[in-house]
Amino acid sequence: MDSLRFFLPTTIESGANCVRSAAGRWVLGRKALLVTGAGAAAASGALADAQAALEARGAGWAHFDGIRANPDADQVYAGVAAAQAQGCDFVVGIGGGSALDAAKAIAWAAAAGVPRERFFRVRPEPGEAALPIVAIPTTCGTGSEVTPYSIITSHEAQTKVNVSGDGLFPKVALLDPRYLASLPPQVLCDTALDALSHAIEGAYSPRSTRFTEALALEAIRTIVPELVRMAHGAFVNLAQLQYASTVAGVVIAQTGTGLVHAMGYPLTYHKGIPHGRANGILLAGYLDFMARPCAALTEKLLEAASLRSSDELHGLVDALLDATNATPEAPSEDELTRFTREPLRLDLVRRYRSMPSPEEVMDIYRTGF
Amino acid sequence: MDSLRFFLPTTIESGANCVRSAAGRWVLGRKALLVTGAGAAAASGALADAQAALEARGAGWAHFDGIRANPDADQVYAGVAAAQAQGCDFVVGIGGGSALDAAKAIAWAAAAGVPRERFFRVRPEPGEAALPIVAIPTTCGTGSEVTPYSIITSHEAQTKVNVSGDGLFPKVALLDPRYLASLPPQVLCDTALDALSHAIEGAYSPRSTRFTEALALEAIRTIVPELVRMAHGAFVNLAQLQYASTVAGVVIAQTGTGLVHAMGYPLTYHKGIPHGRANGILLAGYLDFMARPCAALTEKLLEAASLRSSDELHGLVDALLDATNATPEAPSEDELTRFTREPLRLDLVRRYRSMPSPEEVMDIYRTGF
Repeated sequence: MDSLRFFLPTTIESGANCVRSAAGRWVLGRKALLVTGAGAAAASGALADAQAALEARGAGWAHFDGIRANPDADQVYAGVAAAQAQGCDFVVGIGGGSALDAAKAIAWAAAAGVPRERFFRVRPEPGEAALPIVAIPTTCGTGSEVTPYSIITSHEAQTKVNVSGDGLFPKVALLDPRYLASLPPQVLCDTALDALSHAIEGAYSPRSTRFTEALALEAIRTIVPELVRMAHGAFVNLAQLQYASTVAGVVIAQTGTGLVHAMGYPLTYHKGIPHGRANGILLAGYLDFMARPCAALTEKLLEAASLRSSDELHGLVDALLDATNATPEAPSEDELTRFTREPLRLDLVRRYRSMPSPEEVMDIYRTGF
Repeated sequence: MDSLRFFLPTTIESGANCVRSAAGRWVLGRKALLVTGAGAAAASGALADAQAALEARGAGWAHFDGIRANPDADQVYAGVAAAQAQGCDFVVGIGGGSALDAAKAIAWAAAAGVPRERFFRVRPEPGEAALPIVAIPTTCGTGSEVTPYSIITSHEAQTKVNVSGDGLFPKVALLDPRYLASLPPQVLCDTALDALSHAIEGAYSPRSTRFTEALALEAIRTIVPELVRMAHGAFVNLAQLQYASTVAGVVIAQTGTGLVHAMGYPLTYHKGIPHGRANGILLAGYLDFMARPCAALTEKLLEAASLRSSDELHGLVDALLDATNATPEAPSEDELTRFTREPLRLDLVRRYRSMPSPEEVMDIYRTGF
């Protein structure tokens, strides 16, 4: 039997004002590259908190705000150039998954001296260092603050590529739930569905252990009641969502994601459906598919969600998309047939407990739309 | 509000044969000091596995088997001398809490050059390195394989002293449930009670978070059914106990232990009651005491244990001690009065959610015996 590994080298600091109050534990160099998108880092207050904390510790910073949704290698290398031009010795990602993932890729490419044209061709070596990474999430879905993954869009491969290595784990993750307060409802909903998807895919992973399963159940138990409240337009507990999203991130850091993410990427790349929403749409069909090889586990997942069936999950996701005015247009059958090839191309045996046929993948797509 | 930290820099490898199959991930130097007691490391097969793995990786070792229950500074410094004489560059603790804790203390004292006479007077500095530590537990209670604590007996202070620092976290913990198969029933029972005590004290800690509480509940949910089976002389799932003990260790690595440990130490030091058993005896009275300030949490803990009341917990512990022929002699009232001073001397505000009076400490002792 193979040994199963649990590894989480990230220090998690949580609580209101933690970016300022824990400054002594996350200012890891003389000058930080603050990697952000155009809006959320500033709007959430996280950027100002980080700058104040850096100042309080006598550290400098440069601000690179060139990250957009689904970042590509051009954005990563603009960040690498900024880090080098400014002499930054650590990297702080502030924002959603895009900013955090880009910060990791920048930290690795800058430290390892990876040339732009080889970025998608090489992988971080075991033990290969990146610049120290600090993650300050302003959404509650990616889990990137506690994973070794950086998902970067490759236009050549027309999908997303996972640049992953132990050196890409953030050294510190800073969780302040107040940063979620400025999120638009659609983004809150999309990212919460992403977190739910991490928990479910992680639990079904062939690399799942009793420990990651317990963490996945805890995440599901926490997220689903908030989704139900969201669908009813009721008050949502942001601290709970943030917590559950990080716990689900701890799960996929060990197990990886699975079929839902692999099927979701083409929906995002070709149809522009936001990442978490694309996953959410596919979850009910995925649960049906996995209920055959994994009946007992599927029961446990539904029980943790306080849902009686995958149909109820389907209904919940529909209600959420409806409530946030986010129901996407369905792709054509031709498009779905094309998309079906992609998840099957990804290294199947390691990632999926049960290997789907093209027809089964199509079925999950069709159930979603 | 203060920031709350979660930190677990230990890689956990688990599964039958993991010491040999994961050798590439835990042989962290050229020559290991294997720190063991006189019996369990060899009897369990763990010592032979570790030696075979070291050999397979071309590393050397020296074997220091001078650790006894409740190790003191003399034993630690005999280990330091062995590490230095043999030129060891990493330390592998194999055994129960005594061997693991001693291995950590040796790794720190050897790397930091702490002189024997200053051992209890200085503490590991933040960031101060120890020799890399690998932990191979052969019991299922200590949690030491995933904590930064090393509990060493001070004859001067007539109790146990916690030598603790982030550098004392093992780099790798190797969990092979087969090593528990050779444990005498009394030891299995004592260590499982210790693990249960970690979960309960951790959940009540003022430093507990929703995450550590979820982990504590998972540990309780896993341990108690095995204790019930143990009390009935039925088959016990060793892998479950080992898993739960490590999860409970992850909890106390974040929260520290609490009143039960503080009250248990004098029972061990003065009356020779094994550590886990001393804790187990005190648990029901502790639950009664904590039910006043923390009624809802106490309900959750009992529910996770599938027990209706602290009385049922008391009954379970009694049945266990009976089944393993381990019921200790009750200390006299005079002795208990003396013991009462110690837990009250320990830094109360940080460690206890609710500060007990001497009478309340006496009550918990009396409930136990």
